[in-house]
Amino acid sequence: MATRLFNVTLATLLDDGYGLIEQAELQLQDGRIRYAGPQAEAPEFEPDESIDGAGKLVTPGLIDCHTHLVWAGNRAAEFEQRLHGASYADIAAQGGGIAATVRATRAVTQEQLVQATVPRLLALMNEGVTTVEIKSGYGLSLTDERKQLRAARQLAAQYPVDIVTTLLSAHALPPEFADDADGYIEHIVSDILPQLAAEGLVDAVDAFCENVGFTPAQTERVFAAAQALGKPVKLHAEQLSLQGGAALAARYQALSCDHLEYLDEAGVKAMAAAGTVAVLLPGAFYFLRETQLPPLELLRKHQVPLALATDANPGTSPILSLQLMLQMGATLFRMTPQECLRGVTINAAKALGLNDRGALQVGMRADICWWDCHDPSELTYQFGGQRLLGCWAAGIRR
Amino acid sequence: MATRLFNVTLATLLDDGYGLIEQAELQLQDGRIRYAGPQAEAPEFEPDESIDGAGKLVTPGLIDCHTHLVWAGNRAAEFEQRLHGASYADIAAQGGGIAATVRATRAVTQEQLVQATVPRLLALMNEGVTTVEIKSGYGLSLTDERKQLRAARQLAAQYPVDIVTTLLSAHALPPEFADDADGYIEHIVSDILPQLAAEGLVDAVDAFCENVGFTPAQTERVFAAAQALGKPVKLHAEQLSLQGGAALAARYQALSCDHLEYLDEAGVKAMAAAGTVAVLLPGAFYFLRETQLPPLELLRKHQVPLALATDANPGTSPILSLQLMLQMGATLFRMTPQECLRGVTINAAKALGLNDRGALQVGMRADICWWDCHDPSELTYQFGGQRLLGCWAAGIRR
Ligand SMILES: [Zn+2]
Ligand SMILES: [Zn+2]
Repeated sequence: MATRLFNVTLATLLDDGYGLIEQAELQLQDGRIRYAGPQAEAPEFEPDESIDGAGKLVTPGLIDCHTHLVWAGNRAAEFEQRLHGASYADIAAQGGGIAATVRATRAVTQEQLVQATVPRLLALMNEGVTTVEIKSGYGLSLTDERKQLRAARQLAAQYPVDIVTTLLSAHALPPEFADDADGYIEHIVSDILPQLAAEGLVDAVDAFCENVGFTPAQTERVFAAAQALGKPVKLHAEQLSLQGGAALAARYQALSCDHLEYLDEAGVKAMAAAGTVAVLLPGAFYFLRETQLPPLELLRKHQVPLALATDANPGTSPILSLQLMLQMGATLFRMTPQECLRGVTINAAKALGLNDRGALQVGMRADICWWDCHDPSELTYQFGGQRLLGCWAAGIRR
Repeated sequence: MATRLFNVTLATLLDDGYGLIEQAELQLQDGRIRYAGPQAEAPEFEPDESIDGAGKLVTPGLIDCHTHLVWAGNRAAEFEQRLHGASYADIAAQGGGIAATVRATRAVTQEQLVQATVPRLLALMNEGVTTVEIKSGYGLSLTDERKQLRAARQLAAQYPVDIVTTLLSAHALPPEFADDADGYIEHIVSDILPQLAAEGLVDAVDAFCENVGFTPAQTERVFAAAQALGKPVKLHAEQLSLQGGAALAARYQALSCDHLEYLDEAGVKAMAAAGTVAVLLPGAFYFLRETQLPPLELLRKHQVPLALATDANPGTSPILSLQLMLQMGATLFRMTPQECLRGVTINAAKALGLNDRGALQVGMRADICWWDCHDPSELTYQFGGQRLLGCWAAGIRR
């Protein structure tokens, strides 16, 4: 399939801003971008289909670089109880919270997990998402972590979207290891990680380093094991308190550190030096009613690449909209619309270690969004409604 | 067209909560609800179509009771400038802000206004909205206020949605009356309001009572004129400061007071006594990064009905999603999911003075949403994705 999209405005993302090219043309062939530039300079091409873009905006396909999309169960009732006054402790005492999601995820088959995830994946795809990262972390055993990651792989095989998997076994303590976090970490590094990596289910390795999660020392054990297997790492870091996780992750050349509300300048500098992306997650910030803002000025000052993601999960960000994250990135975090768009394209690709997407450049994957607007700032400014006129994943219109 | 929807869970909204009926049946005939109750007790019926609801949730059609949906122009560039550091004063000095929207709205034809509004209206409809209130207030002259309200009426004629119009000429000061607010109010009460009311374009009358808007005395002149014409009133009140507008509006038996972040107990009591609905607008609260919360406990204590709406407008709430307002009502304002759902159904109907919709009761309009979930709290808890399995407006599936 070869496609020509002419009379469009391209946001290539190839300079430090939008990389706009007006009166442009895009050529897609064999799943790759064949040409992206001024229409007047376009090479000859005999496409199967030629589309008049009506002068409208074309961007790379969007990338949601941090999700926990594969889970079972439903925590709406718990949400309702909290708004009627139940405390987190009340909820935990009745077996709610993440423990409820782990129980529900363990209780279902891989196929049931896939079916539960499909509407969530479609929600993202319908907004123009062409690449999704999905983490494990609700299985917390070899069998159930495998089931989660296999479900993610199965979704990638069945839907026109690319899925990157991240092993997040160090997400919470499973009941089998209550009061034995070190024992669980040992199980991860000796059993879960090497086994699932050997099965080809692990694109990257993540951990939750926090005062209510794992310690920096436990996190480092996971990172060392990942490094030994040649797997890149990333980290849930400095979300609720400053633990020094970002600096630790940078020492392991982490692809990204995510959340970062409590990050300090030492951590920022370490990330900058390592080329680690800062993945900001305004949905969780919003849902948890946090007030500590991520240190945007420091991140800019040290030129740390900024990404944005949904953090879609049932506990702290039950929000299946990357476009809403653009709006929240600007409104809540004061990111510019340029930073927001770069955060779900070129920098989101970097956060996943992918250099074949996230920009409109010859040779990159033909992941393309064609929008019913002219100015890329509109994608961040307005929220709601369907503005996607067309979307191609690896050159195939979906 | 007669439709039977069986094997559903109804959220009738007829008691103080959800008014749930499990294993229920709904019968729609001649645009009205013929039956809504237990399936086992349903009367005989020969519908044209009979649908198995798969045990899923059915609610009344959603009502967005406060929008400024009809406007022209685009303020995305201004939004971007602000995030690059421009102040509101900078924007105003270059003719931006509401003045830009007024200029753009005045510059286009009624047909162009309709075309600009269609995607916004469809965004709301696609989420299950069957009734939308639309205010004028970007014309600010007889001709242009008429054009805005006619555009709203034209949309109602062309799309399967009911539209209620509100004259909000007292929204801002037009350039013709710079430094002469009293003169503009005189023009409203002597010319714009009586003329457009006579033309059948005015279902209700609203004003913006605020330190940056009109004074209580000016507001009262508008209310007195509306009352003389037999038109109900509503008010943008106590959004940025306590002006006593809510108490004033209650003296005129206002249908609703809207925003209300700075409302005091005297105002709450006055609203309660008058039966005035409190319309809370979390989208504007979010977009303006306000921190003063509306007095939810006082409103509950005095049993003021609570509604939620998008306040969709280009300046302070460019958000075309009533479902997001459910999520924000809970997360930002701590409303319960019950209050949120009542706020976009039965209480939103009250805020518009409509008693023929907003609940599932025999004789009411057959405005119906059928959702891909079981528990009504899910409509508030999760955001994103299409969960509407079907939607009927006045009995017609759309
Ligand atoms: Zn996460
Ligand atoms: Zn308003």
